[in-house]
Amino acid sequence: MPVFTSANPDYEKATHESFARQGIMRHIGARLCAVRPGHVEIRVPYHDDLSQQHGFFHGGIVGTIADSAGGYAAFSLMAAGDGVLTVEYKINLVAPADGEELIARADVVRPGRTLTVSHASVYVTQGGKETLCGLMQQTLMRIVGRADVTG
Amino acid sequence: MPVFTSANPDYEKATHESFARQGIMRHIGARLCAVRPGHVEIRVPYHDDLSQQHGFFHGGIVGTIADSAGGYAAFSLMAAGDGVLTVEYKINLVAPADGEELIARADVVRPGRTLTVSHASVYVTQGGKETLCGLMQQTLMRIVGRADVTG
Amino acid sequence: MPVFTSANPDYEKATHESFARQGIMRHIGARLCAVRPGHVEIRVPYHDDLSQQHGFFHGGIVGTIADSAGGYAAFSLMAAGDGVLTVEYKINLVAPADGEELIARADVVRPGRTLTVSHASVYVTQGGKETLCGLMQQTLMRIVGRADVTG
Amino acid sequence: MPVFTSANPDYEKATHESFARQGIMRHIGARLCAVRPGHVEIRVPYHDDLSQQHGFFHGGIVGTIADSAGGYAAFSLMAAGDGVLTVEYKINLVAPADGEELIARADVVRPGRTLTVSHASVYVTQGGKETLCGLMQQTLMRIVGRADVTG
Repeated sequence: MPVFTSANPDYEKATHESFARQGIMRHIGARLCAVRPGHVEIRVPYHDDLSQQHGFFHGGIVGTIADSAGGYAAFSLMAAGDGVLTVEYKINLVAPADGEELIARADVVRPGRTLTVSHASVYVTQGGKETLCGLMQQTLMRIVGRADVTG
Repeated sequence: MPVFTSANPDYEKATHESFARQGIMRHIGARLCAVRPGHVEIRVPYHDDLSQQHGFFHGGIVGTIADSAGGYAAFSLMAAGDGVLTVEYKINLVAPADGEELIARADVVRPGRTLTVSHASVYVTQGGKETLCGLMQQTLMRIVGRADVTG
Repeated sequence: MPVFTSANPDYEKATHESFARQGIMRHIGARLCAVRPGHVEIRVPYHDDLSQQHGFFHGGIVGTIADSAGGYAAFSLMAAGDGVLTVEYKINLVAPADGEELIARADVVRPGRTLTVSHASVYVTQGGKETLCGLMQQTLMRIVGRADVTG
Repeated sequence: MPVFTSANPDYEKATHESFARQGIMRHIGARLCAVRPGHVEIRVPYHDDLSQQHGFFHGGIVGTIADSAGGYAAFSLMAAGDGVLTVEYKINLVAPADGEELIARADVVRPGRTLTVSHASVYVTQGGKETLCGLMQQTLMRIVGRADVTG
């Protein structure tokens, strides 16, 4: 992965503050575990409230934390006051998300002035062993100069 | 849209039973509102627990109900005892999901023996008016003969 | 599909002129067969030069004409002098493209000031019968005020 | 990237033979430049026959060689006699493909018994310098026991 520099000296604080405003992250028990310029990790422990019909993590939860992780990976590079919106994402669910914890690790693969492309790998842990269960490619848009869309 | 016939005379009951086993649907307050062969509608009212950082529905929730709706649209055509798994989905978030209720309407566009392609449109309502906010294209896999993966 | 009005009274001429500048369309024998505001149809007859290893149309050709058709569907709505670039596309190849002619029919599903989402269905004909072989969802970007990126 | 072992001792010969049967690769001047288990590189020099309306490589060509490279990366791991078909691919065109040569480098990221996920990065060279212009995520299907679908 390339090495990035953030346009915001306070990117770490800004990212944590924006994450704390996402009600859904709290509701599903997700934690922001790592923020570096262009890289974010989000974890969520298993709970029956997050299951699909066979008792695994629902694919939508895999997508939700991948989407958030990829979006914040992009946001971590942006200037103070910028906002980020997801244009689209595509996720392959490559194995049942059957385990104790989900871990989404996202990296910016192509930053841009308007559009940024992020990639995320999602792992499920069982007895400490990580298994790849999701692969996401995502397009984000930087929003500039709109007080209602910062973070 | 083409007109489909289900391979399962009890497809409606089977779909509702499988939906009821998805803990995440209950946790986010989603309801299965329509099931026809190859078509499913899911609705979820707004709550701060479902928000992203600007107070809209989180894109992951848009993706989660689109994924479930598309999966059950495919499942509604399958034989009794079959299971369905999402291979992948791609979703465009075309407008902020800012409103009172999300509605995902999914249709099978190409059923297959092993793989099925579904499409979903997601709308957000505000004062009774529906605005398109998500467009999903999805690939589902039929699982046959596995007692642990039915529904 | 919604009914659209073009911002360019000469959209049909502009679309044909831009299409004529795409060397690849001529090289694969593709023809622009219909242009309406928000809708474009492109056809290409079979030739061994377009085959994959089993003698069908290569999936890349299915993608190429779907991409062009979706891009011109978006372009057909834009103002004179605007340019269009593909941000990304996702295509499902739902049946072998085995036949005499490929037909891509594309429609704008969500026009936007900056980003537009198009959808295309690709059919292959055999003895006059059309079979769906490709389904594409695509994001396009409008380019304004750049003399080097018009059309 | 993980290290893979092919199920076919003659994978390199089998991949080159299948590639040679793709009429489109010859028609656009593409060469198979590297084959290792789970990795393939395809290159195509610029020609006006491959252009879009601004004189760059058409996005469909970027998609075509990414699709072939990802498909053969998957095929390189399969057993003798197996066939490979693309289920779907999603490609971001992250920069204009403006240059002398396109290079698609594809890697298997998740091999499977039935479905395999590949990733490709496409670069365009200008004066020897490579610029990333395409990012693809793709799903492939292994076809077993069909004499008409080998390679």
